[in-house]
Amino acid sequence: MCAGACKGVVLALFYGASRDLQPRPSVRKHMNAEQAYETMIALSREETLLASCLDLLEWDEEVSMPRDGVEHRAEQRALLAGLVHDRETDPRYEELLAAVEGSALVSDPESAAAVNVREIRRSFKKERRMPRALVEEWARVTSIAQQTWAESRRNDDYASFAPWLEQIFALARERADAVGYEGTRYDALLDDFEPGMTTERLVDVLSNLQQRLVPLVASFRDTPASSEMLERDFPLERQKLFVESAAAALGFDPRGGRLDVSQHPFCSAIGPGDVRIALRYHPRDFGQGFFALMHELGHALYDQGLDRAFYGTPMGDAASLGVHESQSRLWENHVGRSEGFWRHFYPPLCDAFPEALNDVSLDAFRRAMNHVAPGPIRVNADEVTYDLHITIRFELELALLSGDLRAAELPGAWNELYERHLGVRPRNDREGCLQDIHWSEGLIGYFPTYSLGNVYAAQLFAAAERAVGPLEESFARGEFAPLREWLREHVHRHGMRWPVPELIARATGEGPDASYLVESLTRRYRDGH
Amino acid sequence: MCAGACKGVVLALFYGASRDLQPRPSVRKHMNAEQAYETMIALSREETLLASCLDLLEWDEEVSMPRDGVEHRAEQRALLAGLVHDRETDPRYEELLAAVEGSALVSDPESAAAVNVREIRRSFKKERRMPRALVEEWARVTSIAQQTWAESRRNDDYASFAPWLEQIFALARERADAVGYEGTRYDALLDDFEPGMTTERLVDVLSNLQQRLVPLVASFRDTPASSEMLERDFPLERQKLFVESAAAALGFDPRGGRLDVSQHPFCSAIGPGDVRIALRYHPRDFGQGFFALMHELGHALYDQGLDRAFYGTPMGDAASLGVHESQSRLWENHVGRSEGFWRHFYPPLCDAFPEALNDVSLDAFRRAMNHVAPGPIRVNADEVTYDLHITIRFELELALLSGDLRAAELPGAWNELYERHLGVRPRNDREGCLQDIHWSEGLIGYFPTYSLGNVYAAQLFAAAERAVGPLEESFARGEFAPLREWLREHVHRHGMRWPVPELIARATGEGPDASYLVESLTRRYRDGH
Repeated sequence: MCAGACKGVVLALFYGASRDLQPRPSVRKHMNAEQAYETMIALSREETLLASCLDLLEWDEEVSMPRDGVEHRAEQRALLAGLVHDRETDPRYEELLAAVEGSALVSDPESAAAVNVREIRRSFKKERRMPRALVEEWARVTSIAQQTWAESRRNDDYASFAPWLEQIFALARERADAVGYEGTRYDALLDDFEPGMTTERLVDVLSNLQQRLVPLVASFRDTPASSEMLERDFPLERQKLFVESAAAALGFDPRGGRLDVSQHPFCSAIGPGDVRIALRYHPRDFGQGFFALMHELGHALYDQGLDRAFYGTPMGDAASLGVHESQSRLWENHVGRSEGFWRHFYPPLCDAFPEALNDVSLDAFRRAMNHVAPGPIRVNADEVTYDLHITIRFELELALLSGDLRAAELPGAWNELYERHLGVRPRNDREGCLQDIHWSEGLIGYFPTYSLGNVYAAQLFAAAERAVGPLEESFARGEFAPLREWLREHVHRHGMRWPVPELIARATGEGPDASYLVESLTRRYRDGH
Repeated sequence: MCAGACKGVVLALFYGASRDLQPRPSVRKHMNAEQAYETMIALSREETLLASCLDLLEWDEEVSMPRDGVEHRAEQRALLAGLVHDRETDPRYEELLAAVEGSALVSDPESAAAVNVREIRRSFKKERRMPRALVEEWARVTSIAQQTWAESRRNDDYASFAPWLEQIFALARERADAVGYEGTRYDALLDDFEPGMTTERLVDVLSNLQQRLVPLVASFRDTPASSEMLERDFPLERQKLFVESAAAALGFDPRGGRLDVSQHPFCSAIGPGDVRIALRYHPRDFGQGFFALMHELGHALYDQGLDRAFYGTPMGDAASLGVHESQSRLWENHVGRSEGFWRHFYPPLCDAFPEALNDVSLDAFRRAMNHVAPGPIRVNADEVTYDLHITIRFELELALLSGDLRAAELPGAWNELYERHLGVRPRNDREGCLQDIHWSEGLIGYFPTYSLGNVYAAQLFAAAERAVGPLEESFARGEFAPLREWLREHVHRHGMRWPVPELIARATGEGPDASYLVESLTRRYRDGH
């Protein structure tokens, strides 16, 4: 019974053994481009299929797994992650890509073959440049850092987390240097989440956004609270029924997905025909479950709208995290907070919760759903202040990556920026720089995709409205198909066909432009507060 | 969009690609026995860990998966099954086993090392003898046969299933010939489920059992039905609550497992700390959910009682399917049908279902739970008639394997045996030879483990009672730990340490003996009917 002491030894052997399983190159000599392409696609599909098994393990861990299963699950995940990594870096890709690139098969850059070859080359190049030792060190450090972060946050003890954060940013520099970049190191990290986006462009977009949002937010500072009626009793079982019927009405296909409960809301696309939403409800906070639904539903509709025939290849995958986030933020904010939406859904909502809402008018309810109140916590932020939480994080992670800011100095810098941009000062690090899990997971360059999502969402919504007519009026009639089908036609079904700026330009007639977001917020929030 | 037509081609490429991933032998030369053993155990653990990912996919398919996820799930399962098979037949085992066998490390045959080496050798020898073409043909045929069986059963159309059954038995002969056997072909199949058991011994045990049960069953034939009160209204939500509290009282650890609902009851041990029970409830049949719980709970307690330190090796695995079934049948029949159990649980049951049970005495309820009525369907069978369903299947699968019986002749032979042994004649093949899924899945040699389980269960229960005192009295006090801990001590924690007959002999003082089952049934069912 050496469960404790021997574990390290056994695991070392274990992963030692696992590492030996290298694929044997078996690419035939003199393959033509078509044969090479088909083999490459088969490899890509197998890699995706194996990664989708890992997705199910992760979904189950959040939704179903009994508490004591956690150690075993960590071992299952480590094994599959290793096998997926082996496939991502399979040396056969090099030969196969060489046999296809430049051939007639990829002469049309918009063809599925050209897109798949372009994107497989892009990710293979990155994966192969990453030394296995760095991949393992990264996995080890972020795994411990997550545990440390959770503990530090619980105890409001930033000092115990700081050294880990310092180490994560040091490793992030190593990663950036390993994969290479043209402008700055941050470009290399950003590329994992928003391919093709540069730091320079992002600074441009986000600082512009910040400059225009700060005065808008300041104008709300003295608005008295008016969302009290969302914090009455909303029995959980009835919330779930309401949310399920709303999801179906908006176009979530229940034969190809499911709704569950978890600690953190998320959407997981296990594979074609299997897209799962998990939500967190609160019996005295209707907005928590409802906005989580609208957000995750946006992700789910994107996943359900990808072209199944291309599953397992870049053509069947989302364009970027920013575009994915544009879909969730679009349904959450432009639909779920709209007057048209509630003209349709408020009557059934009152039927479901008569005790809580019998003295609340549609107008008062809708104002409560759109209440603006600067606060220290990002996940509780309203639509107007949300992006300022992001621009603050963006500024800080740039400084941490460059070394201009040391991890030890983070709390002071954090609090100062909150005071300057949002007019609130966190009372402690729990509601300050310890609030988000992302950096402890090694997600650096990820936060900006939330704001990019908001930018794309406002622009896509405006374009959809120009194309199909006044959307709020169709929402008021309970019609969501016009918007959904427009998104499917212009965004979802294209997968990674075009780089993001081109996808946005083709869908909306112009490149990404933050003005739509600022205008939309200004127009919608100017009155009524 | 070639989802239909191209699929075959893509999949062929796909599995072609997957098959190339052969492990590269990396066993160091001149490894000593300890090093070889540790490497072998690491391989065994990785194989088990990967198989446990497949277990989760299967659990999820039964319990959670949305309907349209079925095709993707089939591809995930095929991929993982292939990777598991590659590991089972990993050529490194040959060298490693050779370096350990005969060494001082395995000189004590009861040591963990000796047991693991013995069992890894046994299964490796079998797996390696199976040609890959046969493994693939087996997977292909049983997969189609299952679909055909379901369709044939729905339409009560045995003729369409018969050719597939014929083919399955032909392939079973090939499998037996490939792995080899000493006595008859059936020995080779049996060995997959009950290692070491021979056809000769099994004929002996089961024909003896049949001879003694037929007259016992005949004596019940004219008993009037008395289980009407189990078919009143038992609201599902209250059944679930009752079953959950019963599971906890009996010792199921909810931090290390969970209870769910599925179409077919089953228990799945995903890994240490994660053992899951799935049940089927019926709102007007209390017995369905309750007996399913007691049965699967027996499996779960065995899985929760295995020694975690040996997880991933034979020492941490169940002794056999028959022994596993002994645990489920013991809790289902010797506990769940006992008077002591209901003296404790009937009052809370009446509290949970006052409408259904307010006019039912404990005695009348218990008699209903033990009602004996020969019928055509195995899964609905009472405890007394159950084994006759098994002996009939055993006789028929022996005849089908030898070729004495052709698949086309099965319905006649089936119905004749039911009439002869149980006094009932199925009205059609749906309630006759099409009722079970097993043969369509290729499970031949599996049915007898149910009766072996009953035989072992009665013998173990008697031994436990001799050791710890009258069990029904402890049940009546709500104490189930004495029985559970005795089983843990004498069965669970030993894993595959001994061949089954020796495990039974060490636990009970004598080798397997069906007399205990016949005596237990006779004693418990003699009165009161």
